[in-house]
Formats: sequence, structure tokens, C-alpha cells
Amino acid sequence: MKTTYDCIPCFIRQALDAARLTTSDENIHEQVLRGVLAAASKMNLNQSPPMMGQYIHQLIRELSGIHDPYKNIKDRFNRFALELYPDLKQRIQTSSDSVDTAIRMAVAGNIIDFGVNAEINRSIIFDTIEQAMSTQWFGDIDILRDSIDSAKNILYLGDNCGEIVFDRLLIEQLPVDKVTFVVRGAPIINDATMVDARETGMTELVNVIDNGSNIPGTVLEKCSKKFRECFSDADLIIAKGQGNYETLSSCEKNIFFLLQAKCPVISGHMGCEQGSFIVKRSC
Amino acid sequence: MKTTYDCIPCFIRQALDAARLTTSDENIHEQVLRGVLAAASKMNLNQSPPMMGQYIHQLIRELSGIHDPYKNIKDRFNRFALELYPDLKQRIQTSSDSVDTAIRMAVAGNIIDFGVNAEINRSIIFDTIEQAMSTQWFGDIDILRDSIDSAKNILYLGDNCGEIVFDRLLIEQLPVDKVTFVVRGAPIINDATMVDARETGMTELVNVIDNGSNIPGTVLEKCSKKFRECFSDADLIIAKGQGNYETLSSCEKNIFFLLQAKCPVISGHMGCEQGSFIVKRSC
Repeated sequence: MKTTYDCIPCFIRQALDAARLTTSDENIHEQVLRGVLAAASKMNLNQSPPMMGQYIHQLIRELSGIHDPYKNIKDRFNRFALELYPDLKQRIQTSSDSVDTAIRMAVAGNIIDFGVNAEINRSIIFDTIEQAMSTQWFGDIDILRDSIDSAKNILYLGDNCGEIVFDRLLIEQLPVDKVTFVVRGAPIINDATMVDARETGMTELVNVIDNGSNIPGTVLEKCSKKFRECFSDADLIIAKGQGNYETLSSCEKNIFFLLQAKCPVISGHMGCEQGSFIVKRSC
Repeated sequence: MKTTYDCIPCFIRQALDAARLTTSDENIHEQVLRGVLAAASKMNLNQSPPMMGQYIHQLIRELSGIHDPYKNIKDRFNRFALELYPDLKQRIQTSSDSVDTAIRMAVAGNIIDFGVNAEINRSIIFDTIEQAMSTQWFGDIDILRDSIDSAKNILYLGDNCGEIVFDRLLIEQLPVDKVTFVVRGAPIINDATMVDARETGMTELVNVIDNGSNIPGTVLEKCSKKFRECFSDADLIIAKGQGNYETLSSCEKNIFFLLQAKCPVISGHMGCEQGSFIVKRSC
């Protein structure tokens, strides 16, 4: 998916939000703003939006000297989701259709996205879980279930911290010996890395690899050779979140995108209402 | 008032909205975006926000070749407000306090601002009028009334088309021989110019001058000598809208700002809730 004109004002707002979240130094806020404005004025719009996301957060790291500005947020949301885990697990196990409930739960977890909204809190997460359980869905839950039943090699591309615990709840309903979970290669926004996979029990459940990149999405040519081989070998890919959709929506593989369409550009591209809960097959 | 960091993403969104409203040519949308991004990356933040507004709309005029992109919108909202005029006038005349009702009406008219929101429609205007009549106000209506009673020379700085009819309703309650109404010197966004003052009957009611500038506000050093003399001679200035507030908030004259605080930067600067109806004295 290319970058649209509507992404540009959103990049600038995201850059300012992220700079403020990283430091209270207003000189750095201004340098970030001016740097991102200058870069956006020359950007290649054929790139997917996460390429600018990578640029913004690299600039903030360089100017602030803070390697992982979202570290505290990531830890907090991992811990919070782990606190919820026993109740959510029980809810899945006692539901009339555990797999369906677990899929809904995994998509609900996608609300924990600091790239889109820097003001996520517990109340929003609770509301989103309840919405996900009751709302009409956009997409192909039954086709995903069929695809899971017939898959030999499932690659699950994770997205954010906190959300990774919701992914664990879904993966526990899958044939775990066939699943490889993927994290980002280095910190970017609140995306999950190997540290988070360990903290949330994912590494004890399934094989976990990183993709060798710190783009908040999956740009194959920027990922490691090892990841690309796993991607090529998989016969089912479950890709969580907007960043993975933005970077893989044109990829000719058997990919199911699980996400909440949190911005109007994504919902317009998918042909659904903003805020929709989505399970959508790529091809 | 200086330009804040929060103004910057808003400039970029405004530029895109305005480019789309002017032309369906996507190449021009992109050139406008890239031009405004580059200019914003180097802008002097000590300037007030309307200076960037002037730059954005000048760039759109140059790239599109369209001198007055808002001409149709301006005509439409002038006509619409003139249709409402008899009923609104009767409402003022039959109210228990005509001046108070007319002040509220004039501020309600400030909702017709295409710089802030490109999607103003009739329903929003009707809702705003009712809100303005019933809502708790932020400011100094009684002090304004006292100031009107004692003034010898009132300069009324207009803002937008459509809104100018609401200004007329208020001015009809003032000592009209003491009032001079001011329009912008040339088209900018949907701001009222001399053409609009004529179309809406303002020129028949009071003396009307233009300020010699096409900035969507009042930057004194960019205005004509004639306007500056009128400004200097006035002992009461009524300044409508955000643009006049942004450019005159530090001016040491007896100015009353009448506006709706439609953006969080303005409401933050004034210390009120976003959306508030405001009559505020400068000093």
C-alpha cells in the first residue's frame, strides 16, 4: 500500500506526539518537527507508510539519545495484559466457540497501538474487548479457520506489546507445533521485540524469531534472510495490525490480516467503516 | 500569538483540504503538500498562524491558476445567511435583550470558517445558533456593552462570508454612525472582502473599508496606511474570529474579540473549553 496524501498530516501529528512522549525538551520537539516536515516534503509516496514511521522514530532516537522511548509503556502494557490473561483465557475456554472467541480477542488486542493513538488506556482496552465480542465483523473468520485446519506451517507476524498477550491467547488455540511467531528486529514505537516475547511467555509456547528490521511493519526486502526464508516457506501467514497490512497488502501469499482499522486511510483502502474489526484474506 | 507546534499538523491538513476544494488535480494536491511541508520546515514560529495561512492559499492560487477558489462557497453562504436574516432579525427584535441576543448571534456566525473546517453546512449553522443562545458564555458581554455605550469611534473587524450577515445583525443594534466595518483587502479562504460587504447590505448600513492585506487576520504592519490610521483612531475595536485574535491578541488597544474557539490551540491560549462562545477583552 502506497502512502496517501492523507497520511502526511497524520505523520506530522504522530511525530509531535512521539517527540513529546520521549522528552519534555521543546528544542527537540521543534527539531523533530522541522526534520520530519523536510523529509516529508521530499518523500517517495510509492513507499508504504511505515517507512516514514521508521524515519520519524529514528530521528527521535538520534535527537533525544534515548534508544527505546517506549520501554516503560511496553513493559506497562505487557504487565497489564498478563494481569488480564487468566480471565481472558477462561472466557475463551468457557465460550461456545473457543477459536472464534480467541480470534476476536486477538484483534481486540490490536487497539494497543501507540503509532496511531498516544492515549491508549485500560478503559479503552476493556471497551474494545467487549466491542470485539459483540460487533458485526468485516471479513473472513470462517475462511481463516479452514486455512488454519489445513495449514502445515503458520507464520504469525506480531505487532505491539500488550497485544502480544492477546496473540498468545489465540495461538494457544492453534496447533502450536506448526506456528512460528515473529517480532520486530529492534525497538520501534511500542512494537513487540524478542524481549517482549520472552516476558509474555510467547517463547515458551512457540518458536519465536525476529524479522531483522525496525520498520513498524514488514518490508520484505529490509528483513533478514532467515525471516524471508520462513516467510517463503509458510503456507499460512497471520499478520497483525495496520503496519503489517500497509506493507504486505499487495503480497501474493496466503495472508490473513487481523486488525482494527483505526484510521480512515486504512478503512478506505479496505472498504470498511473506520473502527471495524477485521479478518481479511490477501488474495 | 505565536505559532505553536500543534498548529503545524493542522496547517498541513488545511493545505490538503484547501487544495482539494480548489481543484481535483492530484498533481496540484501533491505540489501544494510538498510546498507547504518545505515552507513549514523552515518557518518562523514567532509569526502568528495566519501568516502561514496566507502562504498556503497563495501557493494554491499560483499552482491552480484560480484567483479566488472559495468564490462559490462565499456566494452560497452569503445567500444562505441573507435568507436567514429576516427570521434572525425578528428574533433579535422580539427578544427581551436585543443587544445580548445580537452579540450571541454574531458569535454564532463565526462557525462559518473554512480555514478551520472545510465541511460547514446548514445544519451545523442552525445547531450553533441554538447553542449560542442557550450556552454559558466565556467572557465579558456586559463590559462590551458598557464599552459600546461610551465609544465614539468603533472599528468592527469582520471575518468570514455568511458570518458578515450575522455581523450586520449586531451592528444594527449599535450606533451605526460611529461604526466602520473592515473587510480583507483581497480574497483569502472564505474571508469577506468589499464585494461581500456590498452583497450583504453592509455598505448601505455603515462605512466599510478594506485593510489592504490578504492575510486571514490583521497583521498591522502588512495593512494599508489608511486602515492603520482608522485602527489607531478607534476607541473600541470589535474583532471577529480566530484569525483576528491570533494576530491581535498582544495588541495594546481596547479590543473585544468575538469568536468561537474552534481549535484546541486557541481555547488553550484563552483558557477556555474548545467550542466555547467568547467575548473577551484584550487588556
